[in-house]
Amino acid sequence: MLAEKRIDVELIEERYWEPSTEFLRRNPAGKVPVLKIDGMNLSDSQAICEYLEETVPDPALMPADPATRAEVRRLIAWFDDKFHHEVTRNLVYERVNKKIMRGGYPDGRSVKAGAANIKFHLRYMEWLLDHRRWLAGDRMSLADFTAAAHLSCLDYISDVDWNLSPSVKDWYATMKSRPAFRSILADQIPGFIQPPHYANLDF
Amino acid sequence: MLAEKRIDVELIEERYWEPSTEFLRRNPAGKVPVLKIDGMNLSDSQAICEYLEETVPDPALMPADPATRAEVRRLIAWFDDKFHHEVTRNLVYERVNKKIMRGGYPDGRSVKAGAANIKFHLRYMEWLLDHRRWLAGDRMSLADFTAAAHLSCLDYISDVDWNLSPSVKDWYATMKSRPAFRSILADQIPGFIQPPHYANLDF
Repeated sequence: MLAEKRIDVELIEERYWEPSTEFLRRNPAGKVPVLKIDGMNLSDSQAICEYLEETVPDPALMPADPATRAEVRRLIAWFDDKFHHEVTRNLVYERVNKKIMRGGYPDGRSVKAGAANIKFHLRYMEWLLDHRRWLAGDRMSLADFTAAAHLSCLDYISDVDWNLSPSVKDWYATMKSRPAFRSILADQIPGFIQPPHYANLDF
Repeated sequence: MLAEKRIDVELIEERYWEPSTEFLRRNPAGKVPVLKIDGMNLSDSQAICEYLEETVPDPALMPADPATRAEVRRLIAWFDDKFHHEVTRNLVYERVNKKIMRGGYPDGRSVKAGAANIKFHLRYMEWLLDHRRWLAGDRMSLADFTAAAHLSCLDYISDVDWNLSPSVKDWYATMKSRPAFRSILADQIPGFIQPPHYANLDF
């Protein structure tokens, strides 16, 4: 979102699982992301995104009418709450975060559940994209970036079956081609080699 | 929030753990609340609240400036995400929801964790209320209603120690005295007798 709105930002790695007093002062919830902007420390990704939309309205990532705004927010919650707990946590957190945090081996049952759940979610995305141009309606919105954020993490560990739905694959190809996605596709996670298809626009 | 904005609503009990096809059509996430309004089925509580604030702006439950709005949204996420997972789920879901859903007995470790966690959260609320008139700033906001919603559920099962912090107790007494709180204080959960202090404004 920062890149779409052309807000320059310096990324600082935060080991949130070993929080410093300084970090807890910035966000007592002990979670990332935290954004230092306009002399404040903002936290909670949705609160941050709404703030950016209100203070830097151009380009708009939220629609103008309340009904479509509600649909965008419903889908953001879908991905950050439901999809997160059913898929991202079971796959990315088990396979990647645990290793980085030295928290032990992935739990087999969680990984199995995540792998089963992602199919249901890709089908739901397909259903949405067969009825709409973008996830929440006729225009690209924060809902698309929220979904793409989760899927890009999962794609880094090759946990997305892109053959399951051409509609979802086409949508993700468009998201990948956004200039704002460039730095995400250049990400390198220590201990995990980026698979060849990850940054490839023709995957 | 509906009562504060004087929007009449008919409450319909939904056994979301045994979802009907009709209910899943209204909200594929299978969660409550779902609000049928203006010819639509809205879901996700935060998306619903933002919609109500945008379409029925009076009385305002969100501040006008983006920085305070971010603080309100941060605290809403604090209660609906962090507090929910650390406290409400461990106490209310274990003691109440499980019984109603015939899901077995409360898990002792969860209940113990919830009882320990709520103290930390009440202290954090106390710290906020010692620096501000309301949770998110100088004016009552959606953050106060979000917090009061969680605490009223916990208070129904006598899981809030009101002696822990006079600031929090005073704040909750004010919330309880809102006309909008009247129907909440009249709630009766089948199988759980309302404790005498629950609806008492002088508790």
